[in-house]
Amino acid sequence: MLCQSNDELQLLVNQAREVIEDGNVADYIPALAKAEQNKLSVALFYPDGRLYSAGDTSENFTLQSISKVLALALALIDHGEEYVFQRVGKEPTGDPFNSIAKLETNKPSKPLNPMINAGALAVTHMIKGESVGHRFERLLEFIRCLSSNETISYNEEIAKSEYDTADLNRALAFFMKQHDVITENIEGLMDLYTKQCAIEMNCNDLARIGCVLAMDGRNPETDEQIIPVDVARICKTFMVTCGMYNASGEFAINVGIPAKSGVAGGIMGSIPKKCGIGIFGPSLDDKGNSIAGIRLLEMMSRQYSLSMF
Amino acid sequence: MLCQSNDELQLLVNQAREVIEDGNVADYIPALAKAEQNKLSVALFYPDGRLYSAGDTSENFTLQSISKVLALALALIDHGEEYVFQRVGKEPTGDPFNSIAKLETNKPSKPLNPMINAGALAVTHMIKGESVGHRFERLLEFIRCLSSNETISYNEEIAKSEYDTADLNRALAFFMKQHDVITENIEGLMDLYTKQCAIEMNCNDLARIGCVLAMDGRNPETDEQIIPVDVARICKTFMVTCGMYNASGEFAINVGIPAKSGVAGGIMGSIPKKCGIGIFGPSLDDKGNSIAGIRLLEMMSRQYSLSMF
Amino acid sequence: MLCQSNDELQLLVNQAREVIEDGNVADYIPALAKAEQNKLSVALFYPDGRLYSAGDTSENFTLQSISKVLALALALIDHGEEYVFQRVGKEPTGDPFNSIAKLETNKPSKPLNPMINAGALAVTHMIKGESVGHRFERLLEFIRCLSSNETISYNEEIAKSEYDTADLNRALAFFMKQHDVITENIEGLMDLYTKQCAIEMNCNDLARIGCVLAMDGRNPETDEQIIPVDVARICKTFMVTCGMYNASGEFAINVGIPAKSGVAGGIMGSIPKKCGIGIFGPSLDDKGNSIAGIRLLEMMSRQYSLSMF
Amino acid sequence: MLCQSNDELQLLVNQAREVIEDGNVADYIPALAKAEQNKLSVALFYPDGRLYSAGDTSENFTLQSISKVLALALALIDHGEEYVFQRVGKEPTGDPFNSIAKLETNKPSKPLNPMINAGALAVTHMIKGESVGHRFERLLEFIRCLSSNETISYNEEIAKSEYDTADLNRALAFFMKQHDVITENIEGLMDLYTKQCAIEMNCNDLARIGCVLAMDGRNPETDEQIIPVDVARICKTFMVTCGMYNASGEFAINVGIPAKSGVAGGIMGSIPKKCGIGIFGPSLDDKGNSIAGIRLLEMMSRQYSLSMF
Repeated sequence: MLCQSNDELQLLVNQAREVIEDGNVADYIPALAKAEQNKLSVALFYPDGRLYSAGDTSENFTLQSISKVLALALALIDHGEEYVFQRVGKEPTGDPFNSIAKLETNKPSKPLNPMINAGALAVTHMIKGESVGHRFERLLEFIRCLSSNETISYNEEIAKSEYDTADLNRALAFFMKQHDVITENIEGLMDLYTKQCAIEMNCNDLARIGCVLAMDGRNPETDEQIIPVDVARICKTFMVTCGMYNASGEFAINVGIPAKSGVAGGIMGSIPKKCGIGIFGPSLDDKGNSIAGIRLLEMMSRQYSLSMF
Repeated sequence: MLCQSNDELQLLVNQAREVIEDGNVADYIPALAKAEQNKLSVALFYPDGRLYSAGDTSENFTLQSISKVLALALALIDHGEEYVFQRVGKEPTGDPFNSIAKLETNKPSKPLNPMINAGALAVTHMIKGESVGHRFERLLEFIRCLSSNETISYNEEIAKSEYDTADLNRALAFFMKQHDVITENIEGLMDLYTKQCAIEMNCNDLARIGCVLAMDGRNPETDEQIIPVDVARICKTFMVTCGMYNASGEFAINVGIPAKSGVAGGIMGSIPKKCGIGIFGPSLDDKGNSIAGIRLLEMMSRQYSLSMF
Repeated sequence: MLCQSNDELQLLVNQAREVIEDGNVADYIPALAKAEQNKLSVALFYPDGRLYSAGDTSENFTLQSISKVLALALALIDHGEEYVFQRVGKEPTGDPFNSIAKLETNKPSKPLNPMINAGALAVTHMIKGESVGHRFERLLEFIRCLSSNETISYNEEIAKSEYDTADLNRALAFFMKQHDVITENIEGLMDLYTKQCAIEMNCNDLARIGCVLAMDGRNPETDEQIIPVDVARICKTFMVTCGMYNASGEFAINVGIPAKSGVAGGIMGSIPKKCGIGIFGPSLDDKGNSIAGIRLLEMMSRQYSLSMF
Repeated sequence: MLCQSNDELQLLVNQAREVIEDGNVADYIPALAKAEQNKLSVALFYPDGRLYSAGDTSENFTLQSISKVLALALALIDHGEEYVFQRVGKEPTGDPFNSIAKLETNKPSKPLNPMINAGALAVTHMIKGESVGHRFERLLEFIRCLSSNETISYNEEIAKSEYDTADLNRALAFFMKQHDVITENIEGLMDLYTKQCAIEMNCNDLARIGCVLAMDGRNPETDEQIIPVDVARICKTFMVTCGMYNASGEFAINVGIPAKSGVAGGIMGSIPKKCGIGIFGPSLDDKGNSIAGIRLLEMMSRQYSLSMF
């Protein structure tokens, strides 16, 4: 049986806090380095509308890599499965999320999956719209709809900070442009991508999005089918095979649910047919995942038998 | 609802046969090249003892890479999770199953997961016993127990043929010996590993093993817990993240169940809490998976909504 | 004894022409693809002022990668050996000239040598000047001085064509910017680098430059020390270890002299203390070297015992 | 003008000794770890028979990688250039001498050059003879002839120690056997190769061999052509492009002569038409080259203008 009260969650949060100091906040951009390391929050959202939560639930954080799942969903809606997967692969990789080597060794050049940076850039490139601004508005609107929160926006300071330091992503993008995986202006794509990563919400919002994915793309409160069933399934599959950077395999063994993390400390979980999970804990382990968030999910997986396997 | 009759399966087999000629039988060892390309069989085994099957169900085939899952289960029983995963990783890889490069670039050298050849050799190295012969007997007895078939043995001709041509596996094994991942005599390990790969059964046997894994390691007919729950869960998790060679990610999207293939054409499926699947179809696609077997599972996944995601 | 007449050279040119049709002109940018495949010319320039030549000696061609040697010389003059080699390595590589993988795997990230694209970009980045325009003027002036030809300039059409298609070089440059090897604006660097590659001359000019390098940096006619002795020695050393792309080792064995090629079909040779060689033949072998130029040098090496080894 | 007295050399040796303590003796096999770190000796042998030397000139050391040059010479004599270079490449590599990755990524699999371990194993495989014992006798006889020293033999303890720990070389050899680059029994090849590496001499012997190479394969005292001119040239070329492990490019710039080092601390130099050099200094730098030997050669190169470039 799943969690039935805020108090249960609070106990788990208290325990998970113990590992916070074994991690560090992301420091690759100044704006992220300002995060308060000790924050930790979790929310569970059930299809019947119940929301359980604990910790610093009102804290906002940027999605970062979690946005890769949502951009993928939108690109699949925009173009269909066949088009998208001609341009980005489906296979997990043992290389780091920001690696460029496989773009060179794989012939023809094609990012291995949409959860590594190269693949995510190729996916964001596919979001339709009349302009970069329009494409971002479409993505933002999609995410507002998924979270049932019309106030969601992006953090301009973090977006700008990431844009200014995105040279590795520029390298990936230009490499793919050389190989015709990306065809648009790279600075426009960087603008769009860094804003996408800087979309901001709290753990309650994230749990609601996870729940939509869990319910096969349907908003359980409105019955609206926001994401087609197949697209939701594809997203959850990638979350299992490549959702937690280079610790995806270990996470699948230890926790066993579809989940996607971001370097701001967020984790979105999605337990098929059951519930959505939103976590925020900016202290990261050496793989870039929220160290207390992972611990929390491991405890929840054992206590509530969450593993799908 | 899952399949309820042999006839249903037969219809799917007939359809799946259409892709057989797009593939080829494995030809890297002479003994495998003799397989009859047109064979195709499938069996479903339910926890309540029902067995549905279709096609050439009496055909025996060697497990090849399917044995990696079972050797892993035995090694985990022998040594526990911590010991085993100090010596072999948990992460999927974008490299081919027989690649050596990551053993060199990863520091310290450690095979990425137990489903690639390097990892499987490291796992087989961990099977306990007083001698190579004794270790093989233990593995064989374990597999007989899992399949409820005391007559299961190995194909001597294929084992010998693989032993004689196992130079790439020797290279992997010596590389790992250099780095203390493997410490035993390499020719003994090759003897054990090639016999393990040559263990032979039919699709009914394989479906029964898949069902034990599906039922968390418990033989549904005898209630015997052959594999501890955690070990069964770990095995199924690896089957999802790395069970189908370099097509694991695509298979997870298109089929979405734990499955492991071998180059002799076998596929073992294991649908948690539901059933085990055994498939044999020696015509392989370019990734080394049974081409008609994959097609069959894709059709079954759609028809019976098998995907876990 | 070295070549003593135009007629001798003409005979060799006639023979070398036979392999022209086994190669192809560079086609990665439209402007280069327009080259006439059948052109072939060679010039030898001796320190005593004699110039022997044969073939289409008045044909102009762009330096392309040959410019890497001259930019290196200028950067070494500008900053000294220590500064330059903190930012670019000295070792040959088995990877292609435009490869990015080693920038990722080498820690800290540093291009392996100045003759591959990554290293050449890092070198051009070091050319001093108040602006991109000024830096290019300095390089051009340096090359005019080396060739004793004040009319040398660059091909605007080819420079623009390369600039427009330089996405792979942009990827290399941004990757190095991420790792602080390059710190300037990338588009400015691309402008400078593509103009550098498009500097244009004929084989006589090139032979004169080769002779300056051969005479330890001294213009034999004016006695001016244009390049310091050590810098000239370093340039010639790189020409031996990495001057002919991925065929440098083979060229060292078969010809055995310092030489640098470019994809427009030029080859600059520099035989220490003896003479300079300029060759132009736009039909390239599969490594990107002038196919008839290489043949010519192999014949000359045998006939005149040119190998230093 | 080259060195004209033992005293000159002694002064240089005294200076070079200062860096000895910045290095370490090889410790990858116990037998090498016993070397006395402080030893340093050098010998110059001129074609006119003069021998200048300084330091611990009577110290014997094993050739280790220096033997790769001599085995290559013998294989070229046995089979000719075409046969040998169909099986091993001519190109320098940026990878470590014992790397296996390029054997996997290069298609078809072929070691990049004869100076890395993979290439050296492929070369030793080509030494003709009726048995492993006979092949080793032939190599030993060849080296005795080159050094004009009939007493040269091999160090059994070191050979055995290397044989017992040669698992990485076994991995390389089996990988190449899988790809038909090597076709013989691997243990026999390991026996031959480890004995080859354990051939023992002092710096005077090594200087004499270097002199034969310098004189285009001719023994200057007897006028015997021990090595064909072309073979001697090829050997010297490889010594320049890949003779000093991953520091070959730097050595070419700083010293500029053909030279080959070994992890026991030996360096063989060969200055075309001028002289042979033998050095022994077991304290190694981080690339595996004699740290004081390199320093000595750098000082000699400056003092006597040895660089060919």
